[in-house]
Amino acid sequence: MAILGSTGSIGTSTLDLVTSFPDRFAVATLAAGRNIDVLEAQARQFTPERVAVAEPEAARELARRLGSLTRVVSGADGLVEAATQGGVDLVVSALVGAVGLAPTYAAVELGRDVALANKETLVVAGKHIMAAAAASGSRILPVDSEHNAVHQCLRGESPEEVRRLWLTASGGPFRRHSLGELKRVTAAEALCHPTWSMGPKITVDSATLMNKGLEVIEARWLFGLGPDRIRVVIHPQSVVHSMVELIDGSFKAQLGITDMRHPIQYALSWPRRWKTKLRPFDPIEAGTLEFEAPDLERFPCLGLAYRALETEGAAPAVLNAANEVAGQAFLEGRAGFREIGEIVASTLERHGADPGESLAELVAADERARSTAVQLLEQGAHR
Amino acid sequence: MAILGSTGSIGTSTLDLVTSFPDRFAVATLAAGRNIDVLEAQARQFTPERVAVAEPEAARELARRLGSLTRVVSGADGLVEAATQGGVDLVVSALVGAVGLAPTYAAVELGRDVALANKETLVVAGKHIMAAAAASGSRILPVDSEHNAVHQCLRGESPEEVRRLWLTASGGPFRRHSLGELKRVTAAEALCHPTWSMGPKITVDSATLMNKGLEVIEARWLFGLGPDRIRVVIHPQSVVHSMVELIDGSFKAQLGITDMRHPIQYALSWPRRWKTKLRPFDPIEAGTLEFEAPDLERFPCLGLAYRALETEGAAPAVLNAANEVAGQAFLEGRAGFREIGEIVASTLERHGADPGESLAELVAADERARSTAVQLLEQGAHR
Repeated sequence: MAILGSTGSIGTSTLDLVTSFPDRFAVATLAAGRNIDVLEAQARQFTPERVAVAEPEAARELARRLGSLTRVVSGADGLVEAATQGGVDLVVSALVGAVGLAPTYAAVELGRDVALANKETLVVAGKHIMAAAAASGSRILPVDSEHNAVHQCLRGESPEEVRRLWLTASGGPFRRHSLGELKRVTAAEALCHPTWSMGPKITVDSATLMNKGLEVIEARWLFGLGPDRIRVVIHPQSVVHSMVELIDGSFKAQLGITDMRHPIQYALSWPRRWKTKLRPFDPIEAGTLEFEAPDLERFPCLGLAYRALETEGAAPAVLNAANEVAGQAFLEGRAGFREIGEIVASTLERHGADPGESLAELVAADERARSTAVQLLEQGAHR
Repeated sequence: MAILGSTGSIGTSTLDLVTSFPDRFAVATLAAGRNIDVLEAQARQFTPERVAVAEPEAARELARRLGSLTRVVSGADGLVEAATQGGVDLVVSALVGAVGLAPTYAAVELGRDVALANKETLVVAGKHIMAAAAASGSRILPVDSEHNAVHQCLRGESPEEVRRLWLTASGGPFRRHSLGELKRVTAAEALCHPTWSMGPKITVDSATLMNKGLEVIEARWLFGLGPDRIRVVIHPQSVVHSMVELIDGSFKAQLGITDMRHPIQYALSWPRRWKTKLRPFDPIEAGTLEFEAPDLERFPCLGLAYRALETEGAAPAVLNAANEVAGQAFLEGRAGFREIGEIVASTLERHGADPGESLAELVAADERARSTAVQLLEQGAHR
């Protein structure tokens, strides 16, 4: 297997599973952004044939440290090399952000199976990725707990008998905050997710509900259902990971503990299931499960994502790019919480209708949206 | 199709579905106990080829009323005739009590598909029924909402990857009653089920949790899992109809509104699903779902059912027979609520180890248990 994003939350959990099931996997390549200390330790433990680092300088340093142990490559090309290396059956795509798109697309084109955790791949280029997968025979297994749950609920069901998908959202740490309170929340508060332990970018996205919006877009492509057939429901306990509604009125839900090693293992073991080594879930311990409607006034990002999905073309890529810029600014204290949605809305207004048929157009739209979002931030024009 | 028990709760719901999907079904036979007024109206509406009535006198009266419209048969043989009539593809087995066993068994032996609502068929003779179904190719589709939910959750899963089944129980109307309060409850109170509208026998069984105990026994045969792999969880809202736990730690649940037409339609439409004509379920309206452990001290019938299942042989038949007698006595005001469990326990103690290999032995054990339970009731020996 190839693990893209091996030093992040999904990557380390994947390697944890590799250690738990030593007979089932060999790690052929590892790729990460810049965390070369962790990457060095991983390379020594799993002895991959190739290691890719996004930044060339970091790559040189890592190559010096690892010596002849493994080959170190770098840059965007290095990531693609890591994803397409010969002898790889399964690519775990867990880089954070739009940087994950190109290597994932390359793996899909080659017909490699992909355990997909990188949201941007489908958000930016869902139509192209799914078409490439259909052509190459690549199977895309979602690692996100929500899509993974939907995948599980769809087992044994016919696509034409599915009415709607219901993605659950914890509601994040600010579920009960008023609009006024939301104005004053800090990055540190946003990073305290009530139920899931994840990386900082996705944790902020969970607090704005943009994470759920991106997941709606992903679900649209993964499962081939229009936005009117994908619903979001707030479920603060995160026990029900998502649900499928069938045409006969029956709902199927997937439940479990909030440990990403579960959906990762599912993606790695599919179509089989392997006996878990994690603590079992117990519905009696779960106690009480609540469900409520999302509030689009306090959490406008979710509505913006639906709007981008309805627009199609470049709009989802623009939404995602603006959100990355604004979310990062919030994390660094350069923007307030509510400005994230404002910047995304303004950027979407300017670039939502941009051309976005080809991958090149999508990448161009992404870049334009980023620079617009940066400008908006600098000018404070959104205030 | 043949509908055994057409005048009861399941039977009338089934005919309601036949009316909703007029192109999909023809009713070949109807069978019921003694409610000839309803049976007459059903016969006029659905014009079956044959109508069976358990009691000969009622059959004669019905034959007089229907004249040449349809053939009326009676008695145990009449029920078997109704179940095995030529041209029937699907038998809906919804008679209440042990009287449903013989016609259901006859249909299974003939290789007919059976939508099974009659609990006693599997409780008394699960091993024989499943062996006969395996030999004849008959498919048994459970109509009970719990087993129906499990059936739905098992779609697309491999039996060897199933760890446990979790049957949900509403807990009945006395979930919060103390032992002392339980002593004084009346049949009228027991008949007020909090979530499901069902016949009186099953409603009393729900109040004692014996219904769940019988369902554990049914599940053991339907899904081929031992009693240690079937758990019961109290879920007062009855929104989650049951769950399946997979070996990888994932749970799948089936959810919906509490309307028996849903599981009946599932059994009738399987392996397809048809667009429902009932109001849709909405998880947001469901609001809060609770789960708690069952209390075997206040509701000993559940523990007795597990004990009978572990004993095997005649014990489940004895449990069921004693429960029918005691439950009926409670409904008629001849026994207190807690006496139901006491009579079942005493009867099980006397006859639980009786021989029960053949169907004839099981029927004999059933009869012995009934007369013992009647005796115990008369003597007040259980007090």
